[in-house]
Amino acid sequence: MNALLRLQSELGRLVSVDPQDLAASRTDKSGWVADGTPLAVVRATTVGHVQAVLRIATEFRVPVVTRGAGTGLAGGACGTDGSIVLSVAGLGRILEINPDDELAVVEAGVINQHLNDVLAQQNLWFAPDPASKAISTVGGNIATNAGGLLCAKYGVTREAVLGLTVVLADGSLLHTGHRTVKGVTGYDLTALLTGSEGTLGVIVEATVRVRSLTPGTVATIGAVFETVTAAAAASAAVTAARIRPAIMELIDPVALGLVATYLGPEGSAGLPLGRGAFLLVQTDGPAALAEAEAALAVLRAAGGEASLSTDAASGERLLAIRRAMHPALEQFGRVLIEDVAVPRSRMAEMFAAIAEISARTGIAIPTVAHAGDGNLHPNFVIPRGDTADASVPEEIWAAADELFQAALALGGTLTGEHGVGVLKRRWLQGEIGDTSLALQRQLKAVFDPLGILNPGTMFDA
Amino acid sequence: MNALLRLQSELGRLVSVDPQDLAASRTDKSGWVADGTPLAVVRATTVGHVQAVLRIATEFRVPVVTRGAGTGLAGGACGTDGSIVLSVAGLGRILEINPDDELAVVEAGVINQHLNDVLAQQNLWFAPDPASKAISTVGGNIATNAGGLLCAKYGVTREAVLGLTVVLADGSLLHTGHRTVKGVTGYDLTALLTGSEGTLGVIVEATVRVRSLTPGTVATIGAVFETVTAAAAASAAVTAARIRPAIMELIDPVALGLVATYLGPEGSAGLPLGRGAFLLVQTDGPAALAEAEAALAVLRAAGGEASLSTDAASGERLLAIRRAMHPALEQFGRVLIEDVAVPRSRMAEMFAAIAEISARTGIAIPTVAHAGDGNLHPNFVIPRGDTADASVPEEIWAAADELFQAALALGGTLTGEHGVGVLKRRWLQGEIGDTSLALQRQLKAVFDPLGILNPGTMFDA
Repeated sequence: MNALLRLQSELGRLVSVDPQDLAASRTDKSGWVADGTPLAVVRATTVGHVQAVLRIATEFRVPVVTRGAGTGLAGGACGTDGSIVLSVAGLGRILEINPDDELAVVEAGVINQHLNDVLAQQNLWFAPDPASKAISTVGGNIATNAGGLLCAKYGVTREAVLGLTVVLADGSLLHTGHRTVKGVTGYDLTALLTGSEGTLGVIVEATVRVRSLTPGTVATIGAVFETVTAAAAASAAVTAARIRPAIMELIDPVALGLVATYLGPEGSAGLPLGRGAFLLVQTDGPAALAEAEAALAVLRAAGGEASLSTDAASGERLLAIRRAMHPALEQFGRVLIEDVAVPRSRMAEMFAAIAEISARTGIAIPTVAHAGDGNLHPNFVIPRGDTADASVPEEIWAAADELFQAALALGGTLTGEHGVGVLKRRWLQGEIGDTSLALQRQLKAVFDPLGILNPGTMFDA
Repeated sequence: MNALLRLQSELGRLVSVDPQDLAASRTDKSGWVADGTPLAVVRATTVGHVQAVLRIATEFRVPVVTRGAGTGLAGGACGTDGSIVLSVAGLGRILEINPDDELAVVEAGVINQHLNDVLAQQNLWFAPDPASKAISTVGGNIATNAGGLLCAKYGVTREAVLGLTVVLADGSLLHTGHRTVKGVTGYDLTALLTGSEGTLGVIVEATVRVRSLTPGTVATIGAVFETVTAAAAASAAVTAARIRPAIMELIDPVALGLVATYLGPEGSAGLPLGRGAFLLVQTDGPAALAEAEAALAVLRAAGGEASLSTDAASGERLLAIRRAMHPALEQFGRVLIEDVAVPRSRMAEMFAAIAEISARTGIAIPTVAHAGDGNLHPNFVIPRGDTADASVPEEIWAAADELFQAALALGGTLTGEHGVGVLKRRWLQGEIGDTSLALQRQLKAVFDPLGILNPGTMFDA
């Protein structure tokens, strides 16, 4: 009996070999498409299903690619040739919400926004907020240690994970972490598994921290600067002034022009067209207004044309400018979103490096940044139909390579929040070095001695 | 040539075989004393010295016990028979303070309070605050993932560590983490090493997050309750009301009586003697007063005799009551501090379990708790001279065992912030289970194939 027959005999109609399912599983939101054809897509709805898949995969030594909502941006959850694509999107139960202990226990397939909708009924909130939160799963957020707009103030996903239930490569169950805020028994396997991109085990359940919804109103500032360098310096000055905005987003002039055009005259009222950079600052909490006023003074002193609003509608209009970024770019082609991060104080230099690379190569690189934490998303737009397949042209990878080298030279990283996946694998060694890479591969081998867990993601297969 | 001669030839006067040095290295603040005699104490002052020690240890297969200030409470840094005790207390340089990027780079031997004194000059702050902060090292704080009084609001040590430089078992150097707030290239080795208690490598340098000093005044509440159960319920009610105190400490009636006697009539004015439990709540930040007033209402509604003060002197007087706990107990003998943590909502049950164990065994267990995060420190006082050596009487371990089982049954952990060390090793498997234990031992073997890094700490040697 082969692996497919065994899957079908044990899991019946959960196993799909429908060519459309197989094809859809080969890509994610990065646009990358894996070569070949997966063996099957298995739509697990219970932990037992996941265990069965892993047992069969171990027995037949078949690769397993775990997949949530498929919203990844690094090609890390794409069905490779001959692999079992294990969807945990169907593990969708919220098992517990405990307001007294400020925690929730959820299955991996729960959508981030759905969890937040349910939590909001009890005045609670799960802080990790990737841009994909409306459609991405909590399990996927954890598997990639997802970031978002609020991290400088509210932390990355890792800081919101207390414990995990994980199916190991042989199908056995591992429980990590605690229901307590503190706990130091043994190594921090919860953190090791967070961000492990499906290469160490399959996260099926998580105990996550929840917070009380931030009380009070928010205050929002929109500021326009002559140059992106000035805007970056202004955002660094906000942080240096010990103001901690919930959101601080920077849009460079290239991106801003595209967004203004996309939004039309009404949506873009007040935005400069074809010149200048835009900085959005939002504060929250009991001191929101005082913090915003302090930020406003800093931004004006730094040369910004800035205005402050405290009404929700104005705040939403300003945030809509940031949200329009991706759709504005997608008008012109497929978007490859890069994800470098640099120390906040080096952000202006990183923007300058991007501008230089763009000017020299002739490739437009519209860029937006989570300025509070130095995380930049330089974007490459690949005209549709430019290449027969969905691959990224080599000249774009060459420009991306220059971006990565510039970020590393500034003390940064090649991925702040999207993960290594398949697309950044070839640059990993350059950042972490030989010693760390060798150790990490050995750690993977402890969890995955047969090399069946998402091979080709993070490390060369 | 043997290991000692090699150490002496390479490291000269850094190597001590003075019997007093060797004897002092065999114990820590837990009072536990390792059997036998260490081979030598090496006082490293540079990373190169640490590398040399590890290279020699690997060559001769000699165990290495890394030690900072020796303030551990689990026997995890005690010089065992034949081991090299590697002191990193002499790695004392603050290498960088970067206010713009809100980080500092320090060597492992820097004292926590010293770092904070230097940071305060720039209005900055390193949040981890173990009770030992005046005398403990940042490296030791990281190696144990130390907690403290402020964790419920400001996080544990792990959340303040961005990156590490670690000397591996063979003497090579590993760099982990980032200077950026975000970064997801590869596995989170920084978190894996944080709390690893010297069993995976020797932390020699750390890049840590620093914060701006919290602006505004603090507000402090002292509240007395008839019973510890009532006080525990009241503290849970504060959290449930979505108030987030910086400090929330609970002292049970047994401990309170001892503290009141120790402080005398003036220091203990207003404290009940021989009855009642004490709850200390301190809020900070821009909304300190509003939060404290809300907490005051909750505490009074829960039956507390509570009063609020905003002047610094009164706040200090209330905190002095908490700080007097340990010296008050030490009057009566050696103190074994236990360290269980339970979900906040179960804290009243944990106090009830402690009272029951105490009543049944006839052993007094004065207890203090970091009530904001459910972390209890039940104390055992061992009369001096009761035993010829420094070991803990078996009836006390038997009572401690019951405490641990009670904490686990409530969904808790046997150590919230002190670590496993030697003293909790025999209970580790009971908490984390066979699967996790086996995995963790394999992870250790990746870092330490010869088993020379702090053998006997965390796992059976």
